[in-house]
Amino acid sequence: MTTIHGYSSSGNCHKLRLLLEQLGRPYRWIEVDITAGATRTPAFLAKNPNGRVPMLELDDGRILVESNAILCFLAEGTPYLPADAWQRAQALGWMFFEQYSHEPYIAVARFISGWTPLDSPRRADLPRLRERGHQALAVMEKHLASNDWFTGPDHGVADIALFAYTDVAGDGGFDLSPYPALRDWLARVRATPGFVAMPDPPAAMKALIEQSTWGGA
Amino acid sequence: MTTIHGYSSSGNCHKLRLLLEQLGRPYRWIEVDITAGATRTPAFLAKNPNGRVPMLELDDGRILVESNAILCFLAEGTPYLPADAWQRAQALGWMFFEQYSHEPYIAVARFISGWTPLDSPRRADLPRLRERGHQALAVMEKHLASNDWFTGPDHGVADIALFAYTDVAGDGGFDLSPYPALRDWLARVRATPGFVAMPDPPAAMKALIEQSTWGGA
Repeated sequence: MTTIHGYSSSGNCHKLRLLLEQLGRPYRWIEVDITAGATRTPAFLAKNPNGRVPMLELDDGRILVESNAILCFLAEGTPYLPADAWQRAQALGWMFFEQYSHEPYIAVARFISGWTPLDSPRRADLPRLRERGHQALAVMEKHLASNDWFTGPDHGVADIALFAYTDVAGDGGFDLSPYPALRDWLARVRATPGFVAMPDPPAAMKALIEQSTWGGA
Repeated sequence: MTTIHGYSSSGNCHKLRLLLEQLGRPYRWIEVDITAGATRTPAFLAKNPNGRVPMLELDDGRILVESNAILCFLAEGTPYLPADAWQRAQALGWMFFEQYSHEPYIAVARFISGWTPLDSPRRADLPRLRERGHQALAVMEKHLASNDWFTGPDHGVADIALFAYTDVAGDGGFDLSPYPALRDWLARVRATPGFVAMPDPPAAMKALIEQSTWGGA
C-alpha cells in the first residue's frame, strides 16, 4: 500500500490526501511533526536528504519526494492527469508556477503567521510576501476569468496543487474578495466528488493566526 | 516551428536551448531583454501574465510557460524523458527540487552578483542565499555519489534542469570544490552529444560578477 509521510496542516501534504481521497485509493498516512524536528532526524534524512514532507514510500522502500511530482505519479492513468501532451504540459506549467510564484509567498506568509511567535523577526517579511502572493493570485484570476479549471477541461492535479494553499490564504492575511473568478473556482473544487478540506491547524497555531490577522501584521 | 522567447544569459532559458540542440530539432529563438523590461510590456503580459521567460510559442499562437514544463513537453517521446512512470516521477521530483530548493538561491545569488549594482541592498541577502544554495548542492552531491544521472539511467530533462544554474554557480560565489561527484556529473553533461554551453553574460554583467567574487561579497 502507498504510504504518505506528511504533516496534516501543510498544504503541500494535503494535496496528496485530497487526490488519494478523490481517487478512492487506499493509503497509509504517517504523521510527521515538522514542528518537533521530525524531518531533520537521521532516519528521515536517509529517506529524503532534502528534509521535507510530503514523501511517498512504496512497500519495497522506494521513495518519491516533491508534492507535485507525487501528484503526477498518483494521477497517472486517471482523469486527474490529462492524457493529451499539451494539456499535461499546461498542468505542469501551473504546478511549477505554484511552487515558484505562489507557495513561497502564500504558504510562507501562512507559516510565519501561525508557526512563528508574534515577535518573530520573520514577520517583517510579511508585507513583501503578501505583495508577491497577490501577484500570483492575480495571475490565477486572469486565467479563471475565461477557464473553469487549470488542468484542461476538468478538475485535476493542477487544480489540487493550486487549491491547497489558496483555500487557506486567509491564514496568511490574504483577502480574496478582489478575485471573484478565483473564489468561484475554490467553490467548484470544494464541490468535486470525494473532496476533503485540510484539517484546522493545531490550537496554538490557530490562535497565532487569529492574532496575526486581527493585529493586521 | 517552435519559437522560444528567452534571455540567453538566463539558466532557465538556456535549459531549452540545450535540449533543443541535443534533440537536433529546429527552433526559432527570440531574444527578450529582461534588463530592459521586455517581459513587462502589455504585449508580453498578454502572452504570459506572470511576466517571465522562457516562453514557448507554437505556430498557432498557443503558449506554454515554466522552463521545466517546457522541457517535459519538448522531451515527450524522446529518451530525455523516461517512458517508465516511476523514473518520470523521479525526474519531475528533481525538477521541482530545482525550482524550489536550488534556483531561488543559486540563480538568485548569480543574478544579484551580476545584475544589481555593487551597492545594491539586495547584496545583504547573499550570505543567506549561499547557505541555502550549498544545502541544495549537498543534496545533489549525495545523489550523485551513487548515481551517474538524475533522470533514470541516462542524461535527460532533470540533468538539463539542474545543470543550467549549477554550471554557473561560481558566478554567484559558490565554490564547487567540496562536491567531487557533482563536478564529475557536470563534466559528464558537458560531454553529452550536442551539448552547448550558456553564452557568457554581457560585458557589464561579467564585470560585476568578477568584482563581486573578488570582493568576497
